[in-house]
Amino acid sequence: MDIVLGVDIGGTKTKVGLVDADGRCLEKTFFRTKEYPNLDDYIEKLQETCDDLLQKGGQDFKVLGCGIGAPNASSKNGTIENASNLLWKGTVPFLSKFKEKIDLPMRIMNDASAAALGEMLFGSAKNMTDFIAITLGTGFGAGIVANGQLIDGYDGFAGELGHVDMTMGDGRLTGLGVKGGLEAYVSATGLKRTIMYMLSKYLVDSRFRSIAFNDLHGEDISQAAEEGDPIALMSFDYTAKIMAQALANFTAFTQPEAFILMGGLTNSGKWIMDPLEKYFNEFLLEIYRGKVKLLMSGMEGKTAAICGAAALIWEQHKS
Amino acid sequence: MDIVLGVDIGGTKTKVGLVDADGRCLEKTFFRTKEYPNLDDYIEKLQETCDDLLQKGGQDFKVLGCGIGAPNASSKNGTIENASNLLWKGTVPFLSKFKEKIDLPMRIMNDASAAALGEMLFGSAKNMTDFIAITLGTGFGAGIVANGQLIDGYDGFAGELGHVDMTMGDGRLTGLGVKGGLEAYVSATGLKRTIMYMLSKYLVDSRFRSIAFNDLHGEDISQAAEEGDPIALMSFDYTAKIMAQALANFTAFTQPEAFILMGGLTNSGKWIMDPLEKYFNEFLLEIYRGKVKLLMSGMEGKTAAICGAAALIWEQHKS
Repeated sequence: MDIVLGVDIGGTKTKVGLVDADGRCLEKTFFRTKEYPNLDDYIEKLQETCDDLLQKGGQDFKVLGCGIGAPNASSKNGTIENASNLLWKGTVPFLSKFKEKIDLPMRIMNDASAAALGEMLFGSAKNMTDFIAITLGTGFGAGIVANGQLIDGYDGFAGELGHVDMTMGDGRLTGLGVKGGLEAYVSATGLKRTIMYMLSKYLVDSRFRSIAFNDLHGEDISQAAEEGDPIALMSFDYTAKIMAQALANFTAFTQPEAFILMGGLTNSGKWIMDPLEKYFNEFLLEIYRGKVKLLMSGMEGKTAAICGAAALIWEQHKS
Repeated sequence: MDIVLGVDIGGTKTKVGLVDADGRCLEKTFFRTKEYPNLDDYIEKLQETCDDLLQKGGQDFKVLGCGIGAPNASSKNGTIENASNLLWKGTVPFLSKFKEKIDLPMRIMNDASAAALGEMLFGSAKNMTDFIAITLGTGFGAGIVANGQLIDGYDGFAGELGHVDMTMGDGRLTGLGVKGGLEAYVSATGLKRTIMYMLSKYLVDSRFRSIAFNDLHGEDISQAAEEGDPIALMSFDYTAKIMAQALANFTAFTQPEAFILMGGLTNSGKWIMDPLEKYFNEFLLEIYRGKVKLLMSGMEGKTAAICGAAALIWEQHKS
């Protein structure tokens, strides 16, 4: 049976799994990324983890290759460059180092781009040739597919849409110091920042007056909205409005058939999606109206990133 | 000798020419678009013009096809839809109508996308696989090439970047009613609007205090800048700053190797380009810095649009 190794390198966890041709994750495991601040140690740990997993799978598998998703990965250079939530600094020649350890066809890609390929092969974007996958976690990531191909860019760094300025240089700073950058507003972290902003702006009573920023969790904000907390409701509305403007702008770029949304912020369900749909249709240019869908990820949340990474290899085996 | 018919449909003029494999326009002519408010009359006039031109060219030519550039054209549908500066309203089935008259391989495309193909085949973007062509005339148009292919979008309307909102819904209106839309600032018309804005904001002396909006011309603004007119200088700076922010945002999308600039506003030369370069490098994310060129069109101005249209056919004959 043909199988692909999928590796998702996150700031906290590294997840590894075996993914079949239908995008099912048959075996999976993880280890803590931060326990390996030295790259060579990390590569060794990753190799061991892959070997263990393949052994667990037994002799039945023919491994076609290994796909890797990571923040700030350049598919063209095989590198991870200046990733703010990883401990390895500067430009890391990840692919060449890992290839020394495991002799398999291998590809690395920005995690949001890997997620887009996963959706195209196994999820909500099946049969689509033009769509954008959006990850709404700590940051805002995007994987752009046009003409049936992933857009890499000149140097492998296309799709850094979290750092698009929405305010003509006047607004919140992103982690990369971009003023008014989108992910400072539209992400799980952005929503928490907006709760603070609403507490600064209004004097209305709210449960959030007694919760510190670091103790704020997405579920609490949804729960508060459910109970009619005005700060929660205004914060979702504010977030959705900026997100809708951004998606309307992105539509003018590649005119996708759909946006596929995933990540922590989407767990807020209708609280974010209802105002998003409303504002999006309001902001969209007439020529696009009614033609652009807003869809949720079609992947199972826990293994989506592994399957997305594996899609880098499966893509090359599909006709 | 192989030849392609290139047709550029503008709000004022329709230009038709014969273009060879090297992008040279061997013969050209034009007629006034507005004299044919009825589409059937226009199609007939266009047929006659093409026939005359081909006859003028003599028997030596083998015509490979006809490429057409037009505002708001959908390459996928073969239509022109809701073009604000053409007299034919709604959705016009241009390609099918014109094919009834002339039996040739035929393609139609948004004029900025045609310009992009022209630059790729004949101009400043030779050998590039990732770039964006920007037209700065009455409006702001864009033709996006990624992975060596033009980005059409789901429905053929990708690249409508003049209507991207830069201000979170708070700013000047574009012709399509987009608040804070880019082309309301960055275009030949946008520059004139900015002169008015600067006259409203400052009391400083300027030659523009005695010129009405309708009498303002691009050359006058460059001339005034040359003479140190503060309103002209501030207006170029303001325009360049917003344009730089927009191009920095677009870079995060498809990470082009270059932007190729053309159209009326670029005639202002260093007055727009110098501050543009400065701000662009300031606004660009670290990972892109030093990797994105700002280039002027490599096409001869008067025939650029004809050659761009012809590139739609020539593209299919290049290996």
